[in-house]
Amino acid sequence: MKEYTEFAIPPVILSSYAVAGEKEGSGPLGKYYDEVEKDSYFSKKSWELAEGEMQRRAISGAISKSAFDERDIDCVIAGDLQNQCIASSMGAAGFGIPYIGVYGACSTFGETLILGSSMICGGMADNVLCSVSSHFCTAERQFRFPLPYGSMRQPVAQRTVTGAGALLLSKEGVGVKIKGVMTGKITDYGITDANNMGAAMAPAAADTLTRFFNTTGTTCADYDVIATGDLASEGYELLIKLMEKNGIRMADNYTDCGLMVYNNEEQDVHAGASGAGCSAIVTAGYFIKKLSAGEIRRMLIVPTGALISAQSLAQGCTIPAVAHLICLESGDNK
Amino acid sequence: MKEYTEFAIPPVILSSYAVAGEKEGSGPLGKYYDEVEKDSYFSKKSWELAEGEMQRRAISGAISKSAFDERDIDCVIAGDLQNQCIASSMGAAGFGIPYIGVYGACSTFGETLILGSSMICGGMADNVLCSVSSHFCTAERQFRFPLPYGSMRQPVAQRTVTGAGALLLSKEGVGVKIKGVMTGKITDYGITDANNMGAAMAPAAADTLTRFFNTTGTTCADYDVIATGDLASEGYELLIKLMEKNGIRMADNYTDCGLMVYNNEEQDVHAGASGAGCSAIVTAGYFIKKLSAGEIRRMLIVPTGALISAQSLAQGCTIPAVAHLICLESGDNK
Repeated sequence: MKEYTEFAIPPVILSSYAVAGEKEGSGPLGKYYDEVEKDSYFSKKSWELAEGEMQRRAISGAISKSAFDERDIDCVIAGDLQNQCIASSMGAAGFGIPYIGVYGACSTFGETLILGSSMICGGMADNVLCSVSSHFCTAERQFRFPLPYGSMRQPVAQRTVTGAGALLLSKEGVGVKIKGVMTGKITDYGITDANNMGAAMAPAAADTLTRFFNTTGTTCADYDVIATGDLASEGYELLIKLMEKNGIRMADNYTDCGLMVYNNEEQDVHAGASGAGCSAIVTAGYFIKKLSAGEIRRMLIVPTGALISAQSLAQGCTIPAVAHLICLESGDNK
Repeated sequence: MKEYTEFAIPPVILSSYAVAGEKEGSGPLGKYYDEVEKDSYFSKKSWELAEGEMQRRAISGAISKSAFDERDIDCVIAGDLQNQCIASSMGAAGFGIPYIGVYGACSTFGETLILGSSMICGGMADNVLCSVSSHFCTAERQFRFPLPYGSMRQPVAQRTVTGAGALLLSKEGVGVKIKGVMTGKITDYGITDANNMGAAMAPAAADTLTRFFNTTGTTCADYDVIATGDLASEGYELLIKLMEKNGIRMADNYTDCGLMVYNNEEQDVHAGASGAGCSAIVTAGYFIKKLSAGEIRRMLIVPTGALISAQSLAQGCTIPAVAHLICLESGDNK
């Protein structure tokens, strides 16, 4: 079994675009997003359609920031959390670009980068647009309760990010490089508490990171930043403990995108952020800019996902999880 | 924009495995499926879990028929129609193989072959397992009505196939070859009748086939078989008309997997078969055997998908569609 793949000719991230909701825009990374929309409906009739519009803006924005137009893009790879990934197909529909839909829950952003890179390295595409979204209002009423209920949230609960992030990958050019990728395995620790996704996903991230460090012979010290996708405060602490058990000490450069989106206490979001859009907007909005500026030279992003549905929870299933790993390097780094 | 990609070193299909439900097993292709299960619950407590078990059997079956075991497989790429593609993650969970979930409605089987091929050609994997399923009972109660209602079906309605098909792709070996692939674009003809999916999907298949023939300079006569995924009788006739408009005459070698699974009249399935499992079991069960035997030398399989959700239909959205194309050749063909 192949573990980590390092690309001989790394795909280049030519442009990135992050669209965020109002609450995300008020968070610590607000100034890094390309666009903050105050209207949760994005001028559409429903939140489901709003999320489609958000993806459309992310795709359009990433293309606009590059030297290309739609006809130069060989494929859009997109995903989201809505049933049948409908926000992604809605968002991509108008561009006339070949379309691949993917679903990996909140790890979806990692999937799109793995598959986009493989299409480029496999000679199937020169330019691939990767786009991922989530919307607090669509996720809440699909997975939990109708919003007007005003349900109480548990202390370990996370808030689904309203946001979409898009990256334009290319076989050549100047920009942040996708140095390598690693596909995650499904782990299942038997957790059934749907309010504690961080705990369900931490074992998946620990499995992927452990396999990665063991395979590559690297340690935390070899990277400026290591960021998991959306473990938030519960999962973050748990990951550190699980890695210790595996004989690996996570250093101070370890963070989690779920801890970066909000001022958790002031914004009253409990354990932090979650959702497929979480690692997408933090990467497309913040990390790519820091890598481009050379402030981060080399980092690992590890999007994490809980593989559940409302039905699987109702039928008493456990919460399996998966975490994919992407190694990013600033363009000037050999 | 890249249209069709022909692989310099085509991935090889080392093994295939098709699991079918009882009604599918009683159809014209019954003897070609590796396994026919009479229990719609597959010995599980719910139909949702049954579909997961069906995918598990398809994955396990394809591995067993090869010279490999789980540790040799670099990735499982899987998809289905259930919310959050839960049957796929359930089916893949126990194998300890890196996992990628995809969603392209009934075109999902095409997605898995495109992405599996690109992973192999991109050097990310030596062996990839592609697995896709649908289940009549999970689809019916998720997209339409609870089964005990016994709702009347319209004459143009199709029946979702209960079945799972898996193919093991490898970078080398003896077997049917994936000569090339083409990713579909989203088309939208403004159709809103969810009982007539064939009509909604035919324009997508026509777009993909027209682009393919124009790009490659080939015609129907260059292939022994051209099979769309699940247009069934309505969509089949419509595709022929749309292709005529594009100046391309479909020949007698054009068929549709949705017309092959059942004896439509005797089995009372109206327009024919549909579902992500439709093209999956017809290909994994029937076409691969005919290609292996040299009875088919070269063919096109064009899985078709309608990009809808129960929510999008309830909110009055149209039914966009997508169709991917895979060119298969028998192993002895240069």
